Amino acid sequence: MTELIKKNAQTKRSLNVFDRLESEVRSYCRSFQTVFTKGSNAMLHDRNGKTYIDFFAGAGALNYGHNNPHIRTKLIDYLLEDGITHSLDMATDAKETFLLRFQETILKRRGLCYKVMFPGPTGTNSVESAFKIARKVTGRTNIVCFTNAFHGMSLGSLSATGNAFKRGGAGLPLSGTTFLPYDGYLGPLVDTTALLEKLLQDPGSGLDSPAAVIVETLQGEGGLAAASGKWLRSLERICRDNGILLIIDDVQMGCGRTGTFFSFESSGIQPDIVCLSKSIGGYGLPMALTLIKPEHDIWKPGEHNGTFRGNNLAFIAASEALRYWDDDRLAKQIRNHAEVIRDFLSRMASRYSDKIIEIRGKGMIQGLVFQQPEDASRLCKLLFERGVIMETSGPHDEVAKLMPPLTIEAEMLQKGLQKMESALVDMYTGIMPKAAMQMKG
Amino acid sequence: MTELIKKNAQTKRSLNVFDRLESEVRSYCRSFQTVFTKGSNAMLHDRNGKTYIDFFAGAGALNYGHNNPHIRTKLIDYLLEDGITHSLDMATDAKETFLLRFQETILKRRGLCYKVMFPGPTGTNSVESAFKIARKVTGRTNIVCFTNAFHGMSLGSLSATGNAFKRGGAGLPLSGTTFLPYDGYLGPLVDTTALLEKLLQDPGSGLDSPAAVIVETLQGEGGLAAASGKWLRSLERICRDNGILLIIDDVQMGCGRTGTFFSFESSGIQPDIVCLSKSIGGYGLPMALTLIKPEHDIWKPGEHNGTFRGNNLAFIAASEALRYWDDDRLAKQIRNHAEVIRDFLSRMASRYSDKIIEIRGKGMIQGLVFQQPEDASRLCKLLFERGVIMETSGPHDEVAKLMPPLTIEAEMLQKGLQKMESALVDMYTGIMPKAAMQMKG
Amino acid sequence: MTELIKKNAQTKRSLNVFDRLESEVRSYCRSFQTVFTKGSNAMLHDRNGKTYIDFFAGAGALNYGHNNPHIRTKLIDYLLEDGITHSLDMATDAKETFLLRFQETILKRRGLCYKVMFPGPTGTNSVESAFKIARKVTGRTNIVCFTNAFHGMSLGSLSATGNAFKRGGAGLPLSGTTFLPYDGYLGPLVDTTALLEKLLQDPGSGLDSPAAVIVETLQGEGGLAAASGKWLRSLERICRDNGILLIIDDVQMGCGRTGTFFSFESSGIQPDIVCLSKSIGGYGLPMALTLIKPEHDIWKPGEHNGTFRGNNLAFIAASEALRYWDDDRLAKQIRNHAEVIRDFLSRMASRYSDKIIEIRGKGMIQGLVFQQPEDASRLCKLLFERGVIMETSGPHDEVAKLMPPLTIEAEMLQKGLQKMESALVDMYTGIMPKAAMQMKG
Amino acid sequence: MTELIKKNAQTKRSLNVFDRLESEVRSYCRSFQTVFTKGSNAMLHDRNGKTYIDFFAGAGALNYGHNNPHIRTKLIDYLLEDGITHSLDMATDAKETFLLRFQETILKRRGLCYKVMFPGPTGTNSVESAFKIARKVTGRTNIVCFTNAFHGMSLGSLSATGNAFKRGGAGLPLSGTTFLPYDGYLGPLVDTTALLEKLLQDPGSGLDSPAAVIVETLQGEGGLAAASGKWLRSLERICRDNGILLIIDDVQMGCGRTGTFFSFESSGIQPDIVCLSKSIGGYGLPMALTLIKPEHDIWKPGEHNGTFRGNNLAFIAASEALRYWDDDRLAKQIRNHAEVIRDFLSRMASRYSDKIIEIRGKGMIQGLVFQQPEDASRLCKLLFERGVIMETSGPHDEVAKLMPPLTIEAEMLQKGLQKMESALVDMYTGIMPKAAMQMKG
Repeated sequence: MTELIKKNAQTKRSLNVFDRLESEVRSYCRSFQTVFTKGSNAMLHDRNGKTYIDFFAGAGALNYGHNNPHIRTKLIDYLLEDGITHSLDMATDAKETFLLRFQETILKRRGLCYKVMFPGPTGTNSVESAFKIARKVTGRTNIVCFTNAFHGMSLGSLSATGNAFKRGGAGLPLSGTTFLPYDGYLGPLVDTTALLEKLLQDPGSGLDSPAAVIVETLQGEGGLAAASGKWLRSLERICRDNGILLIIDDVQMGCGRTGTFFSFESSGIQPDIVCLSKSIGGYGLPMALTLIKPEHDIWKPGEHNGTFRGNNLAFIAASEALRYWDDDRLAKQIRNHAEVIRDFLSRMASRYSDKIIEIRGKGMIQGLVFQQPEDASRLCKLLFERGVIMETSGPHDEVAKLMPPLTIEAEMLQKGLQKMESALVDMYTGIMPKAAMQMKG
Repeated sequence: MTELIKKNAQTKRSLNVFDRLESEVRSYCRSFQTVFTKGSNAMLHDRNGKTYIDFFAGAGALNYGHNNPHIRTKLIDYLLEDGITHSLDMATDAKETFLLRFQETILKRRGLCYKVMFPGPTGTNSVESAFKIARKVTGRTNIVCFTNAFHGMSLGSLSATGNAFKRGGAGLPLSGTTFLPYDGYLGPLVDTTALLEKLLQDPGSGLDSPAAVIVETLQGEGGLAAASGKWLRSLERICRDNGILLIIDDVQMGCGRTGTFFSFESSGIQPDIVCLSKSIGGYGLPMALTLIKPEHDIWKPGEHNGTFRGNNLAFIAASEALRYWDDDRLAKQIRNHAEVIRDFLSRMASRYSDKIIEIRGKGMIQGLVFQQPEDASRLCKLLFERGVIMETSGPHDEVAKLMPPLTIEAEMLQKGLQKMESALVDMYTGIMPKAAMQMKG
Repeated sequence: MTELIKKNAQTKRSLNVFDRLESEVRSYCRSFQTVFTKGSNAMLHDRNGKTYIDFFAGAGALNYGHNNPHIRTKLIDYLLEDGITHSLDMATDAKETFLLRFQETILKRRGLCYKVMFPGPTGTNSVESAFKIARKVTGRTNIVCFTNAFHGMSLGSLSATGNAFKRGGAGLPLSGTTFLPYDGYLGPLVDTTALLEKLLQDPGSGLDSPAAVIVETLQGEGGLAAASGKWLRSLERICRDNGILLIIDDVQMGCGRTGTFFSFESSGIQPDIVCLSKSIGGYGLPMALTLIKPEHDIWKPGEHNGTFRGNNLAFIAASEALRYWDDDRLAKQIRNHAEVIRDFLSRMASRYSDKIIEIRGKGMIQGLVFQQPEDASRLCKLLFERGVIMETSGPHDEVAKLMPPLTIEAEMLQKGLQKMESALVDMYTGIMPKAAMQMKG
Repeated sequence: MTELIKKNAQTKRSLNVFDRLESEVRSYCRSFQTVFTKGSNAMLHDRNGKTYIDFFAGAGALNYGHNNPHIRTKLIDYLLEDGITHSLDMATDAKETFLLRFQETILKRRGLCYKVMFPGPTGTNSVESAFKIARKVTGRTNIVCFTNAFHGMSLGSLSATGNAFKRGGAGLPLSGTTFLPYDGYLGPLVDTTALLEKLLQDPGSGLDSPAAVIVETLQGEGGLAAASGKWLRSLERICRDNGILLIIDDVQMGCGRTGTFFSFESSGIQPDIVCLSKSIGGYGLPMALTLIKPEHDIWKPGEHNGTFRGNNLAFIAASEALRYWDDDRLAKQIRNHAEVIRDFLSRMASRYSDKIIEIRGKGMIQGLVFQQPEDASRLCKLLFERGVIMETSGPHDEVAKLMPPLTIEAEMLQKGLQKMESALVDMYTGIMPKAAMQMKG
């Protein structure tokens, strides 16, 4: 134990630059107290030579792994040939290539028709732009969003984010949105879209006529609750019936995370607007898209803009990453991995049925819901100690969330799951007492 | 002329991918109708083999030029050695290096003491975070901003942006800000900070007690109006007297644009919060900082966050770019270039004293204010035709703005200015009639 | 018929002063197209000598009838003796008398303890003041209100009013409130307070922590839906548990309308704030009260004010009206009348069970809910023709609402009900064809 | 002195009902610590038999004095003949009479053409309705208002009220308005409408296009600053040029207070909307009007409403009060009184030129601005002691404001002014030391 404590102390010392110079707002570096140096697909290295299996994948920004070699080659070539890196929203070769490939590989094959907007390089830029265009198209101001939604941290997107702590950060009352219960929020028997429809049909309901409904098909930050296809279709129909635009925020769930490129494919809906970011940049590079049905693309030039709309390195990486969608190999691999994960989690859930409430999620974002919310954090802490990066999710941080790169090697996935199993064993057989573990936090 | 028209037609054809697939919101690609392929310091190449001198510099994001070779080397090395690219806000080697170098090279030497926040990779992220922390620190909600300010396009920062067209894009009334006249807005004799002070001292003024004042020292988008040192010091004193935080938005003016690393250095003020983005990323890569005086750094962990806070390629580039500030060579070069530009503009302004109202700006962001606002656009269009990228600024787009990379070679600068001179000659001696030029637009 | 048409024409002529000089916003005078001249308890006279039984009672402002003789005597005496009419919020004899009597007759006997605020003479003033003090006491901004609530037409109270048409009148997005389903809104099996509690307990629900919940025990404008005692007690408990103030808007339901002075008495709850207006003025004179639990009465002097807080004629009338509560005679009479009304409505509802969905309401505010919403208006129109003033209610105006003065004579009540019965007979037996009736509208 | 103290003690005792039962929000009764019983024109009586000259006139609601006998007779007659007291917005004889008389006596003779709206019985109702219709007519949301404006205390009107303490009472950030400097705010040489025009012409000013400008011609609560005719005409022209509605808030300044029925008559402007309340009710009874140019009267029926729109006693009183405007006798009397007041104040101002900065106001609302703001309160306290009711005004309560009934007898006015003179003498000659007076406060 003395060694462990010493090592902890060293690690802490090694973070002193951050403690000293970086703002108190820093967060993940507090859970994962080490200095990382290298990454390769699902493997991370820290300064002390320790390795970690990455079950977090940049919160969904690294679906194609760290330093994907195919992509890297393209990036280096582009850099060496003096390719334009930053272009505002001017036309470049790299952007043209991306637009064409996205059209061919993604939209056309899925029978989808969207104009592509580059709203700035982050998810929140995409959500802000989606709200703007929806309000412009409809002449209405209200946006319907859902309990436990996460859509971003700038003032517009934050107003559609459910988390009270994050909302409080705004420092002034948020407005322009109405929260309604997400699928399943009122129990499995209640179709919460019926409530939406009732409120819309009732001129006395107090629900101001919405410009748009924004929804995640699966709530990555909100605890991995998932909307059923039926619920999404019902939502789409209600939107159509009421002249409301349907926005799918696929920032975390898109780019294959749930098994298909867009998370809504299996539901058959055709959103009016789709927000994409995180893994669209292919290599963890900042990039975002707002996909807009052509009939709604009534922007005036420059009505929304931003300096980093033209991150061409990201376009290069993104174009290369799209090659993964040329055929169905990646999709198949996701399916296989997803099954492995599901089987494993089922085993855990039934073994610890008094500790684990249920499994949630889909594809390569799945997790365990713990009876005692703090168990999720305990597990993540223990796993970090043992070389696995994993995070919690949910309003009470009650879900331990697995979200490896989609490209993770089968053995690496297995290894991570084994570590997870042994951590659960240790947690629940008393070998590692609660008190000791808190000390390490 | 027929050749010119043919060429134009070709160029237009070559943009058809963008016309077809990209949203109507695209803007700069409409002014600069070609597909760019390569860049090298202040030189851009397009697909047709034509070259352009870049007097726009990514709207201030490319102070160190396109594909700066020192920085590129570091980027490629980092990519090759499997350096972490995307790290959320976990600790990495690359981030530590940046923090230390920023501390040593920038803050310490200037006697400044700030905690460094990574608010997400864009200027608007920084401004949003600045508003949040200012509101938290003071418990107040109002933000004072100034006529013709530009602070960003997400809902919070947009509410502090003056431009009516951009504000209209929000689709709902913006609130939480109060606009006051910028330095010089009421003529050279009126100190507009006196109005602020009067309103603050008058409990009946209707000015809700501000959490912060946000100001650009020079309004890059707002027409290159500049605040005097005296005005800034007065503003700082009023803020101090009234418990208001002073935020300098140095997103466009920082990183040397006006001659010093921070644009406010010569004024002697010490802002409570500084917003940096654009060129802080060194190579045109998305990155932003919010600098916060330690006593105001009362964030709770994660109270503001974002996926792309940890763009490590940008940290690598940024760290290398900071080397330019190890000594005063860059600063000297800026001063020399600035003088060259000023002399040239003075010559133009006195030659066309009936067409040009005045010269505005400072350092390597200067411009000509035209009597007929449309002349500024005419000039920029003509220059694009002749191989110079330059943009307009100001509420009526009445200013032609020169903003080359700080690292531009002296000859290239001269060449660009010569092209500008001959364009002005042609515009104002009737050789190129107005009608013909509009055709080219 | 020709006579009817002629008479209609005359009536219309007689409204031409209003048509010509009054704003288009006028409304009730369009439903009740005549010029009224005199009133006496439940009887109204118009200029043409026609009489009407008043089943509307000034929308609840005339619980003690028109020109109540006891009250009138007091008013005339006060006027003749040079009593102060208008006193801002200075102390007057008349105000002291009212305060003492209200304390003795109303609060003390009910074991209630409230400080009395005079917020201005209307219900909306009271609601605005209630929101202010609730926000001040809690430091929170959000107000929870309910579907189909009506709380007033100024910007603050309007934000808690459900009606879309009325909300739209604001001309800008309303904020600061969250609407939740009222008791019974999701069917008789769903306790909607459970939803409130769930949202409060879920830190990700997006429900900003409320300063207050405002609720009507029976929705006078919203279609006569009533909250059960159980629901109100549950609401009170949830408020207590979460530091939320409970505001009862008793503007229309107070002063005996539902059978007790306060409408919430039978439920046993003790609201933190009670809004009273309409009949508190006794004689139809503008007056309102905001009752505040002493521990919440943390106003600074003048923090809310208004010119007509001191309408002393209303204090005189109000004090005299309170005599009705010295014993239980009025309460008994209300009970008797209520039973008569209920019996009558039950008879109608069962006779026209295919036309009438249900009976709603309580005490002396009861109504019929029609299958075809327009039948409610048809009935009211027909009744006006035949000398009864009655109005519709509900989001679709689907409820015909009976709300006579509490002091109505038994025979007059009977007479009105008989007219109602014969109108229903005529409506539903085809004697009076639909087309003819529309002509008369 | 002991007697004085004893008397004070008694008075204080006599307020104990109010101290015990009324909310802490009560205010004027703290300055004027006695219980008033009777009033007659400009004379008030308290419970102790003491009389007071009323130089406050119900904050402008009693322009025709207390218990004006002509009006009282009409009220009593109406009450005795069973006239309708409360009519919502149904048509009544009393309302018709008022409409006709207002049309003939007021509007027609002044060449004004307005539809008359009854928005509810108070000034704030009128302002709220004015904002609604202006926003509806223009489709814009912003309202321009002025430093030190007072427009009311409900959420909409409060957002246009400058006083920080009153604004703070809202408990949430106020929005939808922009404050600009009132006439004279930047000194006598600056025409502040020029600033408005500059901001409107500058698309980068951050001033959201206004639906309306609301202004008082003389700021009754804001310290008696007055707008010049030239300034008002300039404001009107700017509004016309920019499609902005001009709202005059004549709630306090209307009904003859400044010498003409409308305060803006001498300026020659024709506002789009006029808000009237306070003395329009003639006898201190709650009543308000919103006058709307016919072309802007695009309300839908009931889009704004309220229970007490039809206060028929007020209509009766208002109609009788309008008789004062049948000829120019009242106007002449106001002019004479105004001159007497002006002469007196000039004398005081020149005698105490080191204590009194200037005279402000017009007609029968005039006041002294004191060097030491607290002197204004000292004077008012002293005068109350000596039998004169007078209040302070201004952001620092630095103005002692004279506002007697317009109908005050010449001798009573003289008597009041004499008391004021002797109070000033005593204050400034040391006979009554500062400390002693504070004791009495």
